[in-house]
Order: sequence, then C-alpha cells, then structure tokens
Amino acid sequence: MNKKENSIKNWLKENRARGARFLQILVRENSTRGNESSAQAIIIEKCRQLGLTLDIWEIGGKELKEHPAFCCDRQNFEGNPNLVAVLKGSGGGKSIILNGHIDVVPVGDEKNWKHDPFSGTIECGKLYGRGATDMKGGSVALLLAMESLIATGVKLKGDVIFQSVIEEESGGAGTLAAVLRGYRADGAIIPEPTNLKIFPKQQGSMWFRITVKGRAAHGGTRYEGVSAIEKSLLVIERLQKLEKDRNASITDPLFDKIPIPIPINIGKITSGEWPSSVPDRTIIEGRMGVSPEETIEAAQQEMTDCLQELNQKDEWFKENPLQIEWFGGRWLPGNLETNHPLIKELSKSFIDIKGVAPLIEASPWGTDGGILSNVGNTPVVVFGPGITATAHDANEHIDLEDLFISSEIIALTLMKWCEVHE
Amino acid sequence: MNKKENSIKNWLKENRARGARFLQILVRENSTRGNESSAQAIIIEKCRQLGLTLDIWEIGGKELKEHPAFCCDRQNFEGNPNLVAVLKGSGGGKSIILNGHIDVVPVGDEKNWKHDPFSGTIECGKLYGRGATDMKGGSVALLLAMESLIATGVKLKGDVIFQSVIEEESGGAGTLAAVLRGYRADGAIIPEPTNLKIFPKQQGSMWFRITVKGRAAHGGTRYEGVSAIEKSLLVIERLQKLEKDRNASITDPLFDKIPIPIPINIGKITSGEWPSSVPDRTIIEGRMGVSPEETIEAAQQEMTDCLQELNQKDEWFKENPLQIEWFGGRWLPGNLETNHPLIKELSKSFIDIKGVAPLIEASPWGTDGGILSNVGNTPVVVFGPGITATAHDANEHIDLEDLFISSEIIALTLMKWCEVHE
Repeated sequence: MNKKENSIKNWLKENRARGARFLQILVRENSTRGNESSAQAIIIEKCRQLGLTLDIWEIGGKELKEHPAFCCDRQNFEGNPNLVAVLKGSGGGKSIILNGHIDVVPVGDEKNWKHDPFSGTIECGKLYGRGATDMKGGSVALLLAMESLIATGVKLKGDVIFQSVIEEESGGAGTLAAVLRGYRADGAIIPEPTNLKIFPKQQGSMWFRITVKGRAAHGGTRYEGVSAIEKSLLVIERLQKLEKDRNASITDPLFDKIPIPIPINIGKITSGEWPSSVPDRTIIEGRMGVSPEETIEAAQQEMTDCLQELNQKDEWFKENPLQIEWFGGRWLPGNLETNHPLIKELSKSFIDIKGVAPLIEASPWGTDGGILSNVGNTPVVVFGPGITATAHDANEHIDLEDLFISSEIIALTLMKWCEVHE
Repeated sequence: MNKKENSIKNWLKENRARGARFLQILVRENSTRGNESSAQAIIIEKCRQLGLTLDIWEIGGKELKEHPAFCCDRQNFEGNPNLVAVLKGSGGGKSIILNGHIDVVPVGDEKNWKHDPFSGTIECGKLYGRGATDMKGGSVALLLAMESLIATGVKLKGDVIFQSVIEEESGGAGTLAAVLRGYRADGAIIPEPTNLKIFPKQQGSMWFRITVKGRAAHGGTRYEGVSAIEKSLLVIERLQKLEKDRNASITDPLFDKIPIPIPINIGKITSGEWPSSVPDRTIIEGRMGVSPEETIEAAQQEMTDCLQELNQKDEWFKENPLQIEWFGGRWLPGNLETNHPLIKELSKSFIDIKGVAPLIEASPWGTDGGILSNVGNTPVVVFGPGITATAHDANEHIDLEDLFISSEIIALTLMKWCEVHE
C-alpha cells in the first residue's frame, strides 16, 4: 500500500465516530416512499459541504414515463428529489458512478422491533433502524470514501458521480431518471447490503398480482359457494412447483451457495370481507426472481403458462380463469463477466484491506444495477456493507466495522479505477 | 278439522289481501341496524289495534350487558325499542312465545336488485324487498294467525306472547333482553325462512380470528425468513381436517340432506404488506358451525386443541405459537327432540292444512332460538315461510302463498298447544 493509500486509510479510521453519527442522523429520518425529502436533504447538505457539483431535480416527465424500463405506479414525485453530486476529475481517467438509494421499505409490525425503527440505536457496534443496512449504510460508506479523498488532498483523473436516488424499492425510476438525464460512466459500484461479498451478477425481479375468483355464499351453507381461498391453495402449490423447476435449471457456480437462486415470493394475500361469508375473490401479490441469463419477458411467460395450465385443468378455473398482472416494481437482472476490470480492481482493494480474497457470488435480488447496465450501458458491480438477512426485516441493522471497512475498500478502488492525478 | 278451525282458515283466506298489504307497508320501512323504530312502530300499532298487552322498552342495562350470552358491539339502543305483546289466555293452557326480529341486514350492492329494495313490489305472487323473507314475512304470518283467533272469537287458555325484537342479525341481544325481562314459555315458534320446513335443531356458530406469525425477510432471499402465508397453509389444512372430523361424527338423520352440517368457513385472510417481502403475519377470520349436540365452549375447545397440537408439532409454532380469538358474532345452537309435543302439534297442523307431511331437518344457521332455549329454557321450533336462499341476498322475496299457509298452520297449532277455552 502506498503513502496516499495509507493516509486515506488512516483518515477513515480516525473519522469512524463521525461516520457512525452521520448514519444515525440519516436513519432517524423516515424515508419510506413519498417521504424521501428529509433524509435526502441531509445527503444534499453533506455533498454541498464536500464541494461536489450538485444536480437536484424532481423526476418525471414524458421521456421517463414512456421509457420501456419505467415501471412505477407513483403519481407524484414532487418534493422528493433525486440527487447527483459529481467530484470532477482532472481528466484522462475512467469515470465511475457510486449509486445508493434513499428510499426504505415500511417497518412492518413495530412490535417486532426491539428499538424504535427510526432510532438509529447503536448497540455492540451495530446500528439499528429501517434503512441502516438497505441502504443508508452503503451510501454513508460511499460518502466517507469520497470525503477521505478530498480531506487527504487526493485528486482523481476520472469523474466520481455520486447518486442518491429515490424509488429503488419500487422499480428503479430514480436511477432510470438519472440515466436518462445523461449520467453514464465506465463503471459503477452499488453498495447494497452484500455482507462485503462481490456480486457481478444480480437476480432480476418483478411483481405480479394474481386474481382468483370464487362464488359467495353464507358460511353456514358454504358448500353452496366456491371459496376463493380454497381455490388459491391450488395456485400457491403451482407457484411452489414453478419455483422448484426454475431453480433446478440454474447451473451458474456463482449461485452455488444460494439456496433458492431465483425465488418466487408470495408477499401478500387478501381475500374475503366477512367471517361468515364464502370469499369470492383472492388477490395474491408477489415477487418473481429473474435469472441473469434470462429476460424479464421469458420469466413472465413461464408464470403465465403455469396459470394457463391451471385454467385448462381445473373445472372452476375453466369458467373463471385466473388473471395475472405485472404491476409495480420490476428490476432488470445484472450480468457482468467475473473477469471484468472493475471486479479485478475491487477484488485487489479488498485483499489490500482485508488480507483475504473476497467471495464472489450472484446477488439474490435485483438492484438499480439492472437499469444502469441494461439501459445506461454502464458495467455494474454490487458490493457493500450491510447484512442481507436483516434488509426489509424487523431489527434491521448494520455492523459499523463492515461499513468502515467497505469505505476503505471503495476509496482504494476509486484511486485505482479513476487514477490519481499526481 | 273442527268448526272453529274451519272458520279461522276461512278468515285467513278472506284476509289475504290485507295481509299482503301489511307486509308491503312493513318492508317499505328500512329497518337495518340502528333504524328499527319506524318498522317497529307499525308492528306496535297493529298489536294495539288487536288489543294485546304491550310492553315496549329500550334494551340495555347492566344485567343484559354482563350476561355471558350477550354478544354485541352496538353502543346505543335508544329510540329503537323491543316489543312484547301478549294475548292473555284464560288460564290452564300451555303458553307459547312467537318470536320475530324486526332488524334486517344491509341491502348490499343496490345494482344487483331488480326492484328498489324497500319497494315491497309484488310480482307473480311474490313480494320483493329487504326483510320480505328474513323475516318480516314471518312476523306478519304470526300477527295474521293471532288476528284470526281474535276476529273469529276463539279464546285460548294459554298465553300467546308475541315478540318483535331488534339485533337478531348481530348476535341476539334483543331476544336475550326479552328473556332477562322474564318472558319464558312452554314453547316457542320462530318463523325464520325455512321454506316451510320444520327445524327442531339449529346449527349454532361463532366467529374466530387466528393469528399466524412469520419472520419477515427480503423476497429475494426468502429462505432467510419464514413466510406467514406458507405457515398458514398448515393451519388451513388442519382446519379442513377438523371440519371433516367434526362432521363425520354427526349422525343425526336431521342432517342427512346437508352436505356439511357444521362447516368451518374461512371467510377472510389478510397477510403481508409488500410483494417483495416475506410476510410476517397472517390473520385468518372465519365462522365455526356448532352442532346442536354440543356447547359453544366445547366447539371452541376443539379448535383450540387443534391449534395447540400444531403449536407442539411444528418447530416454528413451538417458538411462535398460533393465537386464537373469539370475536364478533356468536349464535347459540338449538336442540329440541324431534318427538317433542310442540313438533308433533306443529306437524299435525301442517298435515291438516297441506295434506302432506312436513320436512323435518336441522337448520344450517343459528337463530334467536339458541338464546330462547339455552338461556330462557323455552323449547323452540323454527318454522316459517320465506325462501332461505334469498335471505341476505339481492332480490330477497317471499312467496305470499306460503306466508298465508304458514299463518293457517300456526293458528291451528296455537289452538292445539294453548287449548281453546270453550
């Protein structure tokens, strides 16, 4: 490790308490969908203090909404802007996008949390709260890495394009808007919670909604109706089989350690209105994983075919066919070759800091990387601190040590990728 | 048939048009929950004209609200009174309660009605409207039967205690209040819509709510969570088995024609909030049928035991036990022996009028008979005109011919049961 690298490492070690404090402030701002502005304001102020060139805008408009990759049911983006903050290079080096999202998912049942989900409580080196891991922690790692360069006087040749976007959890409209605004680069790092694993490939995904019909009747004579709940059991079983079949065909070794490389998650069921009536409709909503090797369209067709099969086999479904909609979120899969220079540089930096080789796997979820790579033509690696298992869960938390380690690894990678202006 | 019986039959035949007109006026008053007073006023005025001894009161008070059979979420009974109107006998005969409820269920989607639900339109001998069948038609049959006795100068030995109660559709607080006010008798007829079948037994029922816990996780790594929907499948399966077992043990021939004598109806399921999260909670709500041979408590215990069994067998439920609540509606079962004198007298009268034997079955729903028999210790038979299948449905209607026939059968039964004072 050279002198500059060492001074960056030292600066990051000395500023850990500040970094933790910054994440705490950020977690305390509830930035669920539609409420992103107050957390975003904290990021914006930080970037302003760092002297970055700011581009703050409310997404929307015809070009975005009519883009084939636009997938969003939100009507109003007013007051909750996207941010791009550029650390301009001196020229001649490769550029890089550092992309984090500011939106977080709902907290679920608050009773399951041991701390207030927006407290940012620190306990035994872990910071708790919705978004701590997914992915305010990652964004803080990016900002610390950039700040360490600025603070230690390291000038880069290539541009570092930091992005704090909205709407990642609902389909990536924020990142798509940034791509359409012209932000592309020679590479990109997205510090989603990978437990410090390197993910060149990412599972894509999309949401589905299946409507199952029944026929209402009084519960006391329920045999005179057809229960939409009972009919739904057939659909759930068929989806379980589809998941099994699809995963059996995955052979990529990057997926070796992943129990279900491309899951079909049933996330929501609602059926019936009255305990003593036979329910006449069930709505099943879920998320279908998409392999890096397939298209969104091919995966959709497989599920549609399954339901079609049920519509033909089952007497009730023959007359009352299952209906499927693809709504809400959709994340394109990502697929970077494992020997891409960005993977190589990141791995080298990982070894410099950690002294061991990184685990290289495929990610079990889609990220905005799918849009960056497929639409923005920017090679993407997903690598970050944060604990995959706690994302979207109660008691979401991040190991602060990992956050700081990742900022060191990212800072070193920026120096190698963008090159240092001597 | 003797002379007095014949003159009553003739009076009823001659007064059919008046009876139909009276039902029409009654149906035109919307008497959904909380709005019972205007329809009740019409009944009260009729009873006053008949010279009955009136007892009109607003239900409520400590004794009612603290009674174990009280099951009601209504706060305010003001302005919507209960009515008991007694035709005092000369003494020495058996007394009888004639019980009808004045409340009707909501109309549902008005678009599904071919006539205004409160029009009382008569078409091809059928009278249409909410409450026509359930059970203003039945109450009119009772009043016609009583009027025929009075008009033809027949004096009875036993008391005839006519009741027009509120709250039947929501758990029976009106009838419970009448029982607690002291109204009990040697027998009771409730003319709910049985299609002129005789129901000595009635299925009881109650509502349940089961909470199934899961552990949230991101849908892309759903194997790190525990799906409350998948765990619910075990609960649904177990409830299906419980329903099967419980119904297999029903041997009463009165249930022979009923596919599922005591159904467990799952009426409502809600689980999850987000398509791409593993749901951490499912709420299952339903209605459990209760056999005439068992108590509410025993049926509850069976379901509780089933869930307890799952809590012990399943590793997840061991740590995250299923929870059950009994909430909302509850209707006590009714159970009169088929050779009870009241059934015999009613059957004889039926044969006298119709010339064929009545169908004797068990009802697939609870009535206020459960409260009258269990709390009031009054033997109850449910028998009335009205079409079971149209109750609670759009286009509810009653066949007027059946209404008049039932009033003849009831009048004859009163003469036999209470005995005629010569």
